[in-house]
Amino acid sequence: MNLEGYRGKALELLTKLNAEIGDTIRIKKGDVLFEGILMPSYSKYDDILVIKLDNGYNIGISIDVNTQVQLINKGSKSVSRSSESATTSEKSEVKIISTGGTIVSKVEYETGAVRPALTTEEILEFVPEAKKIAKISSEVLFSILSENMKPEYWISIANAVNSALKEGNLGVVVAHGTDTMAYTASALAFSLKKLSGPVVLVGSQRSSDRPSSDSHINLLSAILVAKKAPFAEVVVNMHGESSDTYTLVHRGVKVRKMHTSRRDAFQSINDIPLAKVYVEKEEVKLLRKDYIRRQDENIVDPKFDDRVFLLKYFPGLKPDIIDLLVSMNYRGIIIEGTGLGHVSTNFVENIKKATKDGVFVGMTSQCLFGRVNMNVYTTGRLLQDAGVVPLEDMLPETATVKLMWVLAHADDIETVKRLMVTNLVGEINPRHSIEYFPRWYFE
Amino acid sequence: MNLEGYRGKALELLTKLNAEIGDTIRIKKGDVLFEGILMPSYSKYDDILVIKLDNGYNIGISIDVNTQVQLINKGSKSVSRSSESATTSEKSEVKIISTGGTIVSKVEYETGAVRPALTTEEILEFVPEAKKIAKISSEVLFSILSENMKPEYWISIANAVNSALKEGNLGVVVAHGTDTMAYTASALAFSLKKLSGPVVLVGSQRSSDRPSSDSHINLLSAILVAKKAPFAEVVVNMHGESSDTYTLVHRGVKVRKMHTSRRDAFQSINDIPLAKVYVEKEEVKLLRKDYIRRQDENIVDPKFDDRVFLLKYFPGLKPDIIDLLVSMNYRGIIIEGTGLGHVSTNFVENIKKATKDGVFVGMTSQCLFGRVNMNVYTTGRLLQDAGVVPLEDMLPETATVKLMWVLAHADDIETVKRLMVTNLVGEINPRHSIEYFPRWYFE
Repeated sequence: MNLEGYRGKALELLTKLNAEIGDTIRIKKGDVLFEGILMPSYSKYDDILVIKLDNGYNIGISIDVNTQVQLINKGSKSVSRSSESATTSEKSEVKIISTGGTIVSKVEYETGAVRPALTTEEILEFVPEAKKIAKISSEVLFSILSENMKPEYWISIANAVNSALKEGNLGVVVAHGTDTMAYTASALAFSLKKLSGPVVLVGSQRSSDRPSSDSHINLLSAILVAKKAPFAEVVVNMHGESSDTYTLVHRGVKVRKMHTSRRDAFQSINDIPLAKVYVEKEEVKLLRKDYIRRQDENIVDPKFDDRVFLLKYFPGLKPDIIDLLVSMNYRGIIIEGTGLGHVSTNFVENIKKATKDGVFVGMTSQCLFGRVNMNVYTTGRLLQDAGVVPLEDMLPETATVKLMWVLAHADDIETVKRLMVTNLVGEINPRHSIEYFPRWYFE
Repeated sequence: MNLEGYRGKALELLTKLNAEIGDTIRIKKGDVLFEGILMPSYSKYDDILVIKLDNGYNIGISIDVNTQVQLINKGSKSVSRSSESATTSEKSEVKIISTGGTIVSKVEYETGAVRPALTTEEILEFVPEAKKIAKISSEVLFSILSENMKPEYWISIANAVNSALKEGNLGVVVAHGTDTMAYTASALAFSLKKLSGPVVLVGSQRSSDRPSSDSHINLLSAILVAKKAPFAEVVVNMHGESSDTYTLVHRGVKVRKMHTSRRDAFQSINDIPLAKVYVEKEEVKLLRKDYIRRQDENIVDPKFDDRVFLLKYFPGLKPDIIDLLVSMNYRGIIIEGTGLGHVSTNFVENIKKATKDGVFVGMTSQCLFGRVNMNVYTTGRLLQDAGVVPLEDMLPETATVKLMWVLAHADDIETVKRLMVTNLVGEINPRHSIEYFPRWYFE
């Protein structure tokens, strides 16, 4: 009997009723009547029942002597906890690899806090329509909030994606927390050298318990893209604007989370998205033609050297931080400099020493938009003389992940430098267009 | 005789002609004729003459045996190098305090590199119309590129602004490089507690030698705002869109350089600008009413403790960096976390130790847009329990500067914490509106 999360009084009551998760129950509390599907509990109290109402909203109801609970229907759906791969007898078209995050999270009712759930079956319960789009299989790889993501997990995800494609899936969906989704997207993009289908990272900014949740449309779109899109790249699929009309598919190395809470937080920087997805029409509208097509094989090469530091410059930063990072055996530093790619000229000697010691120092801009150009001002030229490598229009975050990957794949500093300025998977955009810069309200 | 920057052959020729900077000269080279005003030279070669053509463009012309040079007119304008305050007999209405940057920079013709010039008179030569807007005085405080700006210079600027207002100027214009202009704007905003007039930071993204330069309109607008605007706050005045129609006046604590090269790079984040300026019509159009009016007195209080570190989080960052910063005697750390304000939970113990040692640890978001909220996810609550203070919708850069100011003004950590979450000069915006988030092209 599955009564996940229930303890004490609530467990006792449910056991007596022979109810389990997925069953429909009715709760009468005073004059108020609630009816819905019994959900797993993440409450810290032992007298709470959690049910999903018809409107899709979950609520937690405390039980006391005046509460009457009835079992209405034995549920047919499994809402069970399982860390195994869920396979159906049929071969799947799209595999969902779950790593955690809001899209697979539950709310703790009393605190309002959210924590990741443990089964992809649970996700699919939120989106029964998914089965109409594709035959789906799923795997719970991790159950972490994405702020806890780390390079060694990127390797596991890359390998899991590779296996899923080799199993014959047309595409893979990676459910991921939004906090570090763009970093993981970059890591997968550099690791997956050839792909037979799209790798679609998807998350949600608002948990599925909220009426304004973006879980639903984001996940359905991601499944659609994984199955149908002609491109075989690592992409991020999230809400495209502030309502539910469409999602945007961004190249993983050119996307950034630009808002703490908006559903359209993810936006392409220095690039345009690959596609716009109207999920109701099951339409993947391509916005560009320069994508990599589905290939015959999959090649995975996920290795990362995490001795890389992302250093954001600000007035008052003291140059001894460079010496310190070198003494801590960092092998690479990505500077998030000012403007066209600068730091104070009092860093020149420290940087010179670091690069002489074989440390790679690359320059990106904290402006985020635009390209560094270290030939315009004297400072830029002095920094280049000291060994700093300008990294074009690469995002600081992408450059950091790329350097971790490059350091694990190059034997000498010259190769590191060459790879860092070579466009491997779209992370460097040689030409910009005016429409890449968003329009502010007052323009 | 002023022949600034000329050496060797060029100096000899100009001396022989009795020409000096500001004079009109004619250069015949083969079949081509150039006529313009002789400008100071920043060439590394000694056979280059630099003249400003009628179209406003400066060119450098090498002289050889086939070059004929004629003096046409003795100039009346002074283009002299002077580090003293330029005062006229008349009392000025607006004072320009020059700190350096592109807006006061010259191009080195051979390398194409730009470096700061040394006189504000030179700036005014680019904008003769300025005199129609206001009676102007000027002071060259520094001649640095803004990547070399540092907290001790902020103090000098604040004091110079204070003096200028006490001298009776209606407003002050601070010419500044764009790289760190937003940081200086924040520093001045926290330092200048009461103001009798606006303090307008202005820079340019393209030097005045280029036809697409924004120096002209930006400087004229800044002078107009300094003289006429009803608000007495520290603001940044820069191009508002990609053409020359208007400039936008941003609150100094809410503005960020968002593009490496665009003229409309400066944009308000989590806020709307204070005003739109149509300089041709001499119109300052207010966009909001909640500004601080011109006051009867000026109070300046610029002190900064630069033992503050801005730490940008990324997956793979190791928590020992916290211990290290504490051991280096940093008194405050501003974390630029992910999403709603997170770092990996493996930082919790290190942060707990740091805050127990009296180090202030504040949380901002690398999303830039939106507000941190550390009550939604378990990680946020764990970090708060470890002593991390959520800093609302403050920009990471503003929070860093604010913390430097606060640490120099508070005796105990509780006061530091209280001041950091108190809205002092508009750096925290309690209410957001949907229009604060820009629209991307595909929305």
